[in-house]
Amino acid sequence: MTNKRKIINDPVYDGFLTIEDDIVFDIISHPYFQRLRRIKQLGFTHLVYPGAMHTRLSHALGALNLMNRALEVLQVKGVELTRDEVLGARIAILLHDIGHGPYSHTSEFMLADMRHEACSRLFMERLNEEFGGSIATAISIFENRHPKHFLHQLVSSQLDMDRLDYLGRDSFFTGVSEGIVGTDRIINMLNVRDDQLVIDEKGIYSVEKFIISRRLMYWQVYLHKTVVAADTLLFGALRRARRLAEGGDTLGLAGTPLFDFLSHHYSEQDFRSDPSLIDRFALIDDSDMACALKGWSRHSDTVLRTLSDQIVNRRLCAVRVANRPFDPEAASTFRTQSQLLYNVAADESEYFVTTGVLRNHAYDYNDQEIRVLFKDGSCRDIGEASDQLDRHFLEKQVTKYYICFPKELR
Amino acid sequence: MTNKRKIINDPVYDGFLTIEDDIVFDIISHPYFQRLRRIKQLGFTHLVYPGAMHTRLSHALGALNLMNRALEVLQVKGVELTRDEVLGARIAILLHDIGHGPYSHTSEFMLADMRHEACSRLFMERLNEEFGGSIATAISIFENRHPKHFLHQLVSSQLDMDRLDYLGRDSFFTGVSEGIVGTDRIINMLNVRDDQLVIDEKGIYSVEKFIISRRLMYWQVYLHKTVVAADTLLFGALRRARRLAEGGDTLGLAGTPLFDFLSHHYSEQDFRSDPSLIDRFALIDDSDMACALKGWSRHSDTVLRTLSDQIVNRRLCAVRVANRPFDPEAASTFRTQSQLLYNVAADESEYFVTTGVLRNHAYDYNDQEIRVLFKDGSCRDIGEASDQLDRHFLEKQVTKYYICFPKELR
Amino acid sequence: MTNKRKIINDPVYDGFLTIEDDIVFDIISHPYFQRLRRIKQLGFTHLVYPGAMHTRLSHALGALNLMNRALEVLQVKGVELTRDEVLGARIAILLHDIGHGPYSHTSEFMLADMRHEACSRLFMERLNEEFGGSIATAISIFENRHPKHFLHQLVSSQLDMDRLDYLGRDSFFTGVSEGIVGTDRIINMLNVRDDQLVIDEKGIYSVEKFIISRRLMYWQVYLHKTVVAADTLLFGALRRARRLAEGGDTLGLAGTPLFDFLSHHYSEQDFRSDPSLIDRFALIDDSDMACALKGWSRHSDTVLRTLSDQIVNRRLCAVRVANRPFDPEAASTFRTQSQLLYNVAADESEYFVTTGVLRNHAYDYNDQEIRVLFKDGSCRDIGEASDQLDRHFLEKQVTKYYICFPKELR
Amino acid sequence: MTNKRKIINDPVYDGFLTIEDDIVFDIISHPYFQRLRRIKQLGFTHLVYPGAMHTRLSHALGALNLMNRALEVLQVKGVELTRDEVLGARIAILLHDIGHGPYSHTSEFMLADMRHEACSRLFMERLNEEFGGSIATAISIFENRHPKHFLHQLVSSQLDMDRLDYLGRDSFFTGVSEGIVGTDRIINMLNVRDDQLVIDEKGIYSVEKFIISRRLMYWQVYLHKTVVAADTLLFGALRRARRLAEGGDTLGLAGTPLFDFLSHHYSEQDFRSDPSLIDRFALIDDSDMACALKGWSRHSDTVLRTLSDQIVNRRLCAVRVANRPFDPEAASTFRTQSQLLYNVAADESEYFVTTGVLRNHAYDYNDQEIRVLFKDGSCRDIGEASDQLDRHFLEKQVTKYYICFPKELR
Repeated sequence: MTNKRKIINDPVYDGFLTIEDDIVFDIISHPYFQRLRRIKQLGFTHLVYPGAMHTRLSHALGALNLMNRALEVLQVKGVELTRDEVLGARIAILLHDIGHGPYSHTSEFMLADMRHEACSRLFMERLNEEFGGSIATAISIFENRHPKHFLHQLVSSQLDMDRLDYLGRDSFFTGVSEGIVGTDRIINMLNVRDDQLVIDEKGIYSVEKFIISRRLMYWQVYLHKTVVAADTLLFGALRRARRLAEGGDTLGLAGTPLFDFLSHHYSEQDFRSDPSLIDRFALIDDSDMACALKGWSRHSDTVLRTLSDQIVNRRLCAVRVANRPFDPEAASTFRTQSQLLYNVAADESEYFVTTGVLRNHAYDYNDQEIRVLFKDGSCRDIGEASDQLDRHFLEKQVTKYYICFPKELR
Repeated sequence: MTNKRKIINDPVYDGFLTIEDDIVFDIISHPYFQRLRRIKQLGFTHLVYPGAMHTRLSHALGALNLMNRALEVLQVKGVELTRDEVLGARIAILLHDIGHGPYSHTSEFMLADMRHEACSRLFMERLNEEFGGSIATAISIFENRHPKHFLHQLVSSQLDMDRLDYLGRDSFFTGVSEGIVGTDRIINMLNVRDDQLVIDEKGIYSVEKFIISRRLMYWQVYLHKTVVAADTLLFGALRRARRLAEGGDTLGLAGTPLFDFLSHHYSEQDFRSDPSLIDRFALIDDSDMACALKGWSRHSDTVLRTLSDQIVNRRLCAVRVANRPFDPEAASTFRTQSQLLYNVAADESEYFVTTGVLRNHAYDYNDQEIRVLFKDGSCRDIGEASDQLDRHFLEKQVTKYYICFPKELR
Repeated sequence: MTNKRKIINDPVYDGFLTIEDDIVFDIISHPYFQRLRRIKQLGFTHLVYPGAMHTRLSHALGALNLMNRALEVLQVKGVELTRDEVLGARIAILLHDIGHGPYSHTSEFMLADMRHEACSRLFMERLNEEFGGSIATAISIFENRHPKHFLHQLVSSQLDMDRLDYLGRDSFFTGVSEGIVGTDRIINMLNVRDDQLVIDEKGIYSVEKFIISRRLMYWQVYLHKTVVAADTLLFGALRRARRLAEGGDTLGLAGTPLFDFLSHHYSEQDFRSDPSLIDRFALIDDSDMACALKGWSRHSDTVLRTLSDQIVNRRLCAVRVANRPFDPEAASTFRTQSQLLYNVAADESEYFVTTGVLRNHAYDYNDQEIRVLFKDGSCRDIGEASDQLDRHFLEKQVTKYYICFPKELR
Repeated sequence: MTNKRKIINDPVYDGFLTIEDDIVFDIISHPYFQRLRRIKQLGFTHLVYPGAMHTRLSHALGALNLMNRALEVLQVKGVELTRDEVLGARIAILLHDIGHGPYSHTSEFMLADMRHEACSRLFMERLNEEFGGSIATAISIFENRHPKHFLHQLVSSQLDMDRLDYLGRDSFFTGVSEGIVGTDRIINMLNVRDDQLVIDEKGIYSVEKFIISRRLMYWQVYLHKTVVAADTLLFGALRRARRLAEGGDTLGLAGTPLFDFLSHHYSEQDFRSDPSLIDRFALIDDSDMACALKGWSRHSDTVLRTLSDQIVNRRLCAVRVANRPFDPEAASTFRTQSQLLYNVAADESEYFVTTGVLRNHAYDYNDQEIRVLFKDGSCRDIGEASDQLDRHFLEKQVTKYYICFPKELR
């Protein structure tokens, strides 16, 4: 039935995504996928960059778009792919992030005791059942069990369609032009050698630029201190909410899926033994969190109320970032002052003062390398192939330390 | 205190909004304004254009940015403005849409019995009290009581900063490049003559383009039939929810502000007599609606459940659009079929079949005209000034008719 | 030999043109085509819009890019095309403007007594000989003799790849954003019905926008009065140069191809009888004209010297534009004054005062109509299909009158 | 006379340059400046990136635009500037490259025996005379003699308006998105401390990005091997032409300014003793070179004819690039083969085989440092301030070696 053929507008690529496969169309129409409309790609980043309201759904569709182009480029270069493999790669990228919960990374581990990848796998398995096994190839690609290894690399590696899409997309919606990547050029330079995804020699500069842009996006957007502040407040609010729930408080959420997950610590094992759990999890998204926080901003518990109000009305805590760890004394002093400021108990003051670490490396030598294919047929790691980004540069990991504390104590 | 000076990134203008006034900064920080973060500019449009998640907050800031530029251009051209007038115009544009409820226009009249402009006025008056009268000039500009009439025209007319920003912004986030307007050029061509905002002769083509682009955005985006379908479903769901609330159903929303507004019909008069009402209204935004719909998609009432599920999971009804009204017979037949399809009562079937009218004119001769200033000092309406867009063209109003009905009956 | 496969960067389409066919590559490499590097797409427009230095070569490659996409879209929609037809359409669009001389339209008829289309045909025929007949299909498409009529429409009609490329390209390089057209959308909406190129119903608004944008580009760019002024000066200079050549002056160009064409009036017939003529014509481009004008700006003849200097150093004449013809008296007075101003003979003064007509219609009912394909399978002309751009609007032809005269007489 | 106030469209900045000063307007109108219309910013780069036809004139105007913004930002931050200093900085940036000859850098030293900066100074001095000394401040800024040192840094340093404009402009016209720089952000972060231009701490990432982008543009555009090939051919052709001129050949250029400069070796001293020399130099631009090459491509001398033809018809020589110098044997063999291939004398074969070095460092520790101003008031060099781009990285100079030889010998 080609009448399902569909075109979706995407401002990032100045054009359209064309969906040709019925099953891809059906997956997109599934409630599991549609829920991604209600999960922002970048959590609280919009508190700094107001345009950053884009969703996981738009990212998944964008990554599918890039996958389509990449597969086409590889086929033109003589890489043979069966219809089933093409479809598998498309579905794998479409579903690679399906397991995200509210505010994407921000809520990871706070609602269920597992990484979002594990959760993605649960959703995929369920969909595979519903679609009579037609997602099996996609799952094997996602889990790196497919014999054509490079298909997995297109979905998950240091130069995958996921990263290419999110860098471009996050640049577009934040307005941070520094993140712009020569996506078209990189995709045009993709190739396969010895079952590995590689980059044609001519693409070296674009890959260098990609590595640098990604790093800049980390410091300018993903690890922006205001976003860190909001995340910290949310972690605190959720911890406090859990604590209150343990004491019997229904948090104004009686009977809701969110309350279910805040009053339990479900593990992957639980999800596997109770198939209904994933369906309940699928009911939770950013809107539940936003509503809960608004409700909690009028809660009787001072800690929960204060933290929630700070998020809802963007009265965020102060953050300091430094190149070395903060003196524990400093945190301790802030805690004592917070106790007075908010009139809370000593052990409650720790909700208002948090320290932590921000870390990013341009490139990860423990992950899949980015390999460059030279004209003479040889392949080398980008660290060797690049004139400029040598191993010294690439291995360097930047670590920073932050402390969050009440703005009033600044 | 210049330490409040702040720069905000806006992807639409490829740059920054600089906020220089403390009071502007304080208004932006106010919960009434921060709530606009949780109200999408284009309601359900993201169901068609997934990028269209941008908020009322980003639009208000963008319009402020254009206002800043416009005031600068006018001053360079010799228009004299006091500090108070500049500030007033800035605040007026910042707050012009503060009264919007969830999903912007979609929920207008459904929660309270007044237009969003009336609601904006209520918010402004309250803020004026809070800020010790410093918003008075802004209010007089907004309400067109300020002696310098053109300041109101910058806020509200057929070529105001509101329209310029939303056309550009909505084009940007939907990816519909047809809506792109030469904003810079138009603003550079603004002038004032006899206390009227006018366009320098050289800007005629840009204004023509603006009028055409706006019309195209109407048909391609604002009145897109899929958006109409979703709006229709929401109207139905809210109507049904109100009906059930009258019958004593708490809709799973007991004690929430949303329930308050769904179980009453507050008028502007009510808002004026009970000052707390506006504060409760300010607590409602897109997230409440999203949560309510998700909850209702599992409600026992078939009508409410069905309509809500169709929105939440994007299983929208079918829509047909035609140049003449649909035969009442057609609607009637669809209703009978819906009754069977959903197993509901005859009077309930009307929730599933809706007819209506879509209407747009390129230009409104009953509104403020767009006037062109010629080199010889004379002014003429754009309809006279333009070689191409004559009155015949501009007056033409396009009317279309739609019918929504269950997809299964297609 | 796929080693000729080549990627060319094009800033307009944010990406690449991929050349797959050897013969296409060979045509691009031919001196006839390479000379288009030295012919600006928009003649003197860069005097107003300094970015508008783009060449006929870049336009030809861009139009080829759009042709590739259009052919792909049509094939996906089930239009059957042989390999030979695809190649023919590609070459036809690549060569459609090969016959342009210096400054594109500006020098038409000044060097040879024929339209640039006739000249394009001469080049094509010659190339067809050189390439052993492999351009025959392209020529039959170009000349509308190919049985698949729609292929010609892709090359030359009111919605062809030529117009789509030049509108987008000229917008890009001038910076006049009003000309931006939803090229991707229009191409995605192309279809074929009854051997006619048509637009799917969903593309109506984009076509409306295209028609409006094109009109705006005419008045804002192509017929810009400063460009008209420069063109007028060039016509004068060339006329004067011819006159002097008749009198035996070698114009500092003795032995050059440009002199050959300035001292003769070659007709199409001449080109057909003397095959070397086209080769000599191919040696002339913008650089010859620029050099000649610089040389002439120091020539002893006052008329030639004055006109040339005005072009070279952008000391252009004044232009007035009006909606009705100028009084012949006005021109006559300006001529008398010019005589004094430049100290020239009465009959020479006419070089400095020129009147003329500027004319543009949005749409030409005498040309190929733009037809819209409705879902019910019916086709209608855009004037009937559009709600807004009715025949009244489309037929309207705007005519303006200009007079150019020495700036000093302003 | 504010009637000279002028707006110029620039596609790069999505808007306009407004010219407010009469003298700036008059300089732009001067033939010395207008000649920059006929000098491409990037010489032969358009042979690889066909969009790169932009001129020195557009770059000079763009840099002026950035200077205007930078001066405004500095003034808002409290840097005091007199009217004369503002004007001086504007004129200095406008004229910083006025001395370029045909194809910009490509022809440096080939026509006159001095750097383009020396030539710029000559033009500036002459203009200063013509304008009655009003350019004196601009010259003192340009030559770094002005007491406010940071004004010179805005014109010429490692983060000046020149570089900011050319990186953005060259990216725009080539379509190499890797070069895009956050110009707005960098300019917003400019500041002055101790009479030095500095970058506010928040701008660190943008400066890092700027350094990386510039490096990438070097390797991807400025030192592109095809451009190197064309440059090499031009050097060869000019050397040969000079040699033939020494032997009495007029090169088809008798009496032209180009011939004057090809048959002499004028030094800066010559220019200073003969004031008419600079005027003759001002008559030479890209068009003369293009015409000469076309003429020479039919010259009787095999060397000149062959080299010229290769440029004109883009039949470029082959280039190999390597990380170490080529074996002299290789060049020697290629020369012997060339002798046979072109049937030329042994000493003529060296025109067809050239070796050379390409060199670029990201940052130059011998030049003005880029200094970062921290919140605590301290300043540090970018190499110390950046977490990632340490001295090791910044000091690294990349050197490559190339050899050009006839394509047929590949």
